[in-house]
Amino acid sequence: VSEKSAVIISVGTELTEGIIRDSHGAFLSSELTRRNVSVRRIEQLPDDENLLSQFSRAVADADLLIITGGLGPTTDDITREVCASLFGTALELREDVWEMMIKRYPALSGRANRRQAMIPGACEALDNPFGTAPGFTGVLGTTRVFALPGPPKELTGMSNLYLFPFLEKELKLSAREVTEASLFLIGESRLEDACRALADSNPVYASMSWGTRVQEYRISLYLRGSSEEVRLSFLQALQKRFGAELVQPGDVTADSLLSAALLETGASFAAAESCTGGLLGVLLTAVPGSSAYFLGSCASYADSFKEKFLHVPREIINRYGAVSEECARAMAEGVLAAGEADWACSITGIAGPSGGTDEKPVGTVWIGLAGKGMKSLGIRFLFGYNRDSIRRRSVVAAMVLTEKYLRGLDALDMCRFWQYS
Amino acid sequence: VSEKSAVIISVGTELTEGIIRDSHGAFLSSELTRRNVSVRRIEQLPDDENLLSQFSRAVADADLLIITGGLGPTTDDITREVCASLFGTALELREDVWEMMIKRYPALSGRANRRQAMIPGACEALDNPFGTAPGFTGVLGTTRVFALPGPPKELTGMSNLYLFPFLEKELKLSAREVTEASLFLIGESRLEDACRALADSNPVYASMSWGTRVQEYRISLYLRGSSEEVRLSFLQALQKRFGAELVQPGDVTADSLLSAALLETGASFAAAESCTGGLLGVLLTAVPGSSAYFLGSCASYADSFKEKFLHVPREIINRYGAVSEECARAMAEGVLAAGEADWACSITGIAGPSGGTDEKPVGTVWIGLAGKGMKSLGIRFLFGYNRDSIRRRSVVAAMVLTEKYLRGLDALDMCRFWQYS
Repeated sequence: VSEKSAVIISVGTELTEGIIRDSHGAFLSSELTRRNVSVRRIEQLPDDENLLSQFSRAVADADLLIITGGLGPTTDDITREVCASLFGTALELREDVWEMMIKRYPALSGRANRRQAMIPGACEALDNPFGTAPGFTGVLGTTRVFALPGPPKELTGMSNLYLFPFLEKELKLSAREVTEASLFLIGESRLEDACRALADSNPVYASMSWGTRVQEYRISLYLRGSSEEVRLSFLQALQKRFGAELVQPGDVTADSLLSAALLETGASFAAAESCTGGLLGVLLTAVPGSSAYFLGSCASYADSFKEKFLHVPREIINRYGAVSEECARAMAEGVLAAGEADWACSITGIAGPSGGTDEKPVGTVWIGLAGKGMKSLGIRFLFGYNRDSIRRRSVVAAMVLTEKYLRGLDALDMCRFWQYS
Repeated sequence: VSEKSAVIISVGTELTEGIIRDSHGAFLSSELTRRNVSVRRIEQLPDDENLLSQFSRAVADADLLIITGGLGPTTDDITREVCASLFGTALELREDVWEMMIKRYPALSGRANRRQAMIPGACEALDNPFGTAPGFTGVLGTTRVFALPGPPKELTGMSNLYLFPFLEKELKLSAREVTEASLFLIGESRLEDACRALADSNPVYASMSWGTRVQEYRISLYLRGSSEEVRLSFLQALQKRFGAELVQPGDVTADSLLSAALLETGASFAAAESCTGGLLGVLLTAVPGSSAYFLGSCASYADSFKEKFLHVPREIINRYGAVSEECARAMAEGVLAAGEADWACSITGIAGPSGGTDEKPVGTVWIGLAGKGMKSLGIRFLFGYNRDSIRRRSVVAAMVLTEKYLRGLDALDMCRFWQYS
């Protein structure tokens, strides 16, 4: 089977006026790429008369056209009309679709939503259990067209219900053999250099791809083709270079690693944060069920807060400063004892842009680790590049180290060999 | 001057494989729209042989073509070569550009980056003080083409340095008259209904636009054209409907409102969080300088943490539950007293998806407010729709209420009239 090509178009003037940022292109192109479909382009278009020419170009250029958005009940939503022109047919009211809509949402019956049950004559309606707007699909020449609703939950639901099964059944495409890895604390340019250095000795380099998931604080690396053995040897070379803890096989986040270790051991955990303002607690509690192991996090931004809530002796702050091994250890020990937790970590650093000194430049971060009956540890890092990334890297480092520490590994020794940036 | 049109193209296979999500389209289209340029489409394209035909189509379709990305030093970056073909000229090494690059980054001198100093013959090089890749600009027929580097900081910097000044000076375009407002806690569908109800009585409706800034927990509303008086009367009608505190003029966030009030009054602030896991602290400390007023936030997820750190009496939790007026007030009073803060707030609720009861369904959130020498308050909310949005709405409500409370307003009375969802 030769590779199929696709064009993805998101419709909405709010996209081309920069009011909202398109997310459908990234979602759909990721899912299509996994299924061996080559995405030739992603477009965001305003709801205007140029839609027809762009839809026509896409039909000429690709085997698959996926249109999202513009299926709402109001007159500015014209995707249905434009698709009718594209297919050279009229819009037809589908009584069965309309009945399904009012059965699901009785309040719609007297409202403008009836427009949403109008489908281009040549197309098949796609019932939408996730919202009001039905989608539709049809064939033009050799191109299959899907029109799906724009609200993110509806788009995801409808894609799972109709688009991906179509690809897998009709086109016989399935997620290709991919080895995925999750990389923490490693800057893009360092990763690029490392991968390039492996290019001559490993054929996987030619088909690798990777992307930074800023919101999840990691880089996802995808190795495709060749054999699994070859793909794993590429990964092992990266682990050797950067540290195995920073190059994790699979689709994992630092917080999911820590959560799994806590669940597995039935242990409780508390944190003491400073420059990160509470970010570690936010990440750990983003998923339901975290109350099984997470007691709380005390974000002690002011030194007085560190004294009052974490019982860090004023003398330690006066003598060593709040950004010091001594303070990091005292913070972790303090929250461990006061919170009666099994394990605790702390983060104290200079996130900048000001506050740095020659001895403690911006990006200096101490991470403290403490456990019941264990000797506490303090580990120093120097992170780049700006306030946001220093905060994010600090939290990821703290979670990776805590996971190793509670599993009985020598965290201090381990991260001596880390190559991060 | 008639309206100018633009096409924005981001180049990079990582975009069309769904590994990273394009942000340049949203940034540039927002800035262009503000300057009266109509964005006809935004595209993301892979680094392949189809670039030339898409660049040519864009030149045929618009007065302005902005290309970002593909200017790196490696051979997969082909934007320079494709632009040379587009302009029908060869690439030329610009010695002055190369000298500037190695002056700025001496380490480059022996490296592949020399390719980056190659510019299409017909174009003017744009020196890049923000990174290695220079940009360039040229004219094809009636279309002005800009090629700018892809890394977000470089793109922003180069746009501010070359693109926007060009628009303002050469094309005599400036940011148009816009009234902007920031809306908190108001769902999209409620806002749409309210705006539509104003359509007949106010002509601004026809040119309004708005978008949800999920990451900033607000909706930005833009009213264009007509007179300022008419635009403000539209805004006032929305304020009357939803509550003036939830419809703020200008480009503001809930945390910036609270921070400004604290700075203005020279007061200190502490928070006690539960279901939000520390999100309020993270938002308040995202900007430098927050240490002037923010002492800390204790995210007491477990009941034991509420007792030990916030001194909430066990009896209150046993009798009323952790999600109750009594517990919210005790948490706020506890962090106020222990942290020696001037003002404090607390958040305790059921973010779900499980844990709800008939009496306290998922989305039930109590916000507590306390101040030195003030009677504490507890205010109940019922937020939708899922864990993430309940957490976000809780934090925004707490910040808006705290700001009013510390300014001496009756927060309890005020939010009785709020229309939120």
